[in-house]
Amino acid sequence: MQIINEILDIETDSRIGIYNVTPLLEKILLETSIKSGQVLIFSRHTTTALTINEYEERLLEDLKSYLRKLAPQSEKYLHNDLHLRKNIPPDEPMNAHSHLMAMTLSTSEVIPVVDGKLGLGTWQSVLFCELDGPRKRTLLIQVCGQ
Amino acid sequence: MQIINEILDIETDSRIGIYNVTPLLEKILLETSIKSGQVLIFSRHTTTALTINEYEERLLEDLKSYLRKLAPQSEKYLHNDLHLRKNIPPDEPMNAHSHLMAMTLSTSEVIPVVDGKLGLGTWQSVLFCELDGPRKRTLLIQVCGQ
Amino acid sequence: MQIINEILDIETDSRIGIYNVTPLLEKILLETSIKSGQVLIFSRHTTTALTINEYEERLLEDLKSYLRKLAPQSEKYLHNDLHLRKNIPPDEPMNAHSHLMAMTLSTSEVIPVVDGKLGLGTWQSVLFCELDGPRKRTLLIQVCGQ
Repeated sequence: MQIINEILDIETDSRIGIYNVTPLLEKILLETSIKSGQVLIFSRHTTTALTINEYEERLLEDLKSYLRKLAPQSEKYLHNDLHLRKNIPPDEPMNAHSHLMAMTLSTSEVIPVVDGKLGLGTWQSVLFCELDGPRKRTLLIQVCGQ
Repeated sequence: MQIINEILDIETDSRIGIYNVTPLLEKILLETSIKSGQVLIFSRHTTTALTINEYEERLLEDLKSYLRKLAPQSEKYLHNDLHLRKNIPPDEPMNAHSHLMAMTLSTSEVIPVVDGKLGLGTWQSVLFCELDGPRKRTLLIQVCGQ
Repeated sequence: MQIINEILDIETDSRIGIYNVTPLLEKILLETSIKSGQVLIFSRHTTTALTINEYEERLLEDLKSYLRKLAPQSEKYLHNDLHLRKNIPPDEPMNAHSHLMAMTLSTSEVIPVVDGKLGLGTWQSVLFCELDGPRKRTLLIQVCGQ
């Protein structure tokens, strides 16, 4: 049984952006000799998310619109009353909606590894979602198996 | 440490359908000698989902209504402008709403195995959700442990 | 490879309440000698959920408002027609909205363990969400690794 941990640094380039990280996971998996097991991808932030779906550019726009509809930036949020919060950094953004979007999706995804490959279906990609960018972000990747 | 991978084929019978796959997982687990570990169930599609909740027929209808309210089929979605997309198959459905519903739930679930049994609570069932059926679907099941 | 299963009992104190369980997970992890692996936290209920986000009191209120907006208690739900359901316990609550909130978040979270510590980012906490309390609840914690 092997467990390999890697850190992936990603610099995002927009307010809300969706990135296909499947090739990065495939590369990390190939560098191991693991044939059966799992890849865990875990985002270390509270205003980013992971999801698995089709990487189709127009669908990604639909996903952004959907998240904006569920948690509109323009709504009133208590978290955005910065003057009522303690110990906030000077550059604290007003991003309650980004946190809510993140919780609607997932902080992590687990993908089974079968015959040395990610067990994704034909149309599935692992998508990293920046919800309050642009920023430098880090992902933790764990490959475990045998 | 053992890792067992199985494929489950499911033929769904409605546009939106919710299926209790707990007995199938219990059967696969029983065929192994694993007493402690995990069962990972992973759906290989972008318009299906997994969730864990109560398998009560009226609640399942509420779940369908909830998903339809969050992501109505009647809304305008960029992904549904098929004439503006490249390389689409001839039978490509207009199913952006199904993708959004899928991302609101989960692509996979992990259930701990304790004393050779799924560690589910009294009212919990593992539910496979067809969101753009009827279709033939496949689930990947991975049991790992000792 | 070690696999350690623990049960955590939690008594919640409000209808909708959000509890930071990170210190409990850290304590369980420290009692093992596992340096690399995963912590799985799994809620054994259909009206509770887990999520990972910032434990900031005003954001928690925003999360409650968000869940109430998505799945309002006042809406009509089939699951709440108790007289039309079979075999229901005498104290069955009208809680369809709580089930829907739970499915919008997650039943479990997986946190990678790296160098003997939870791989959480600076602002991340593991949050247990009571969505139909107050009640006695149990969480299953599984630490696996080496």
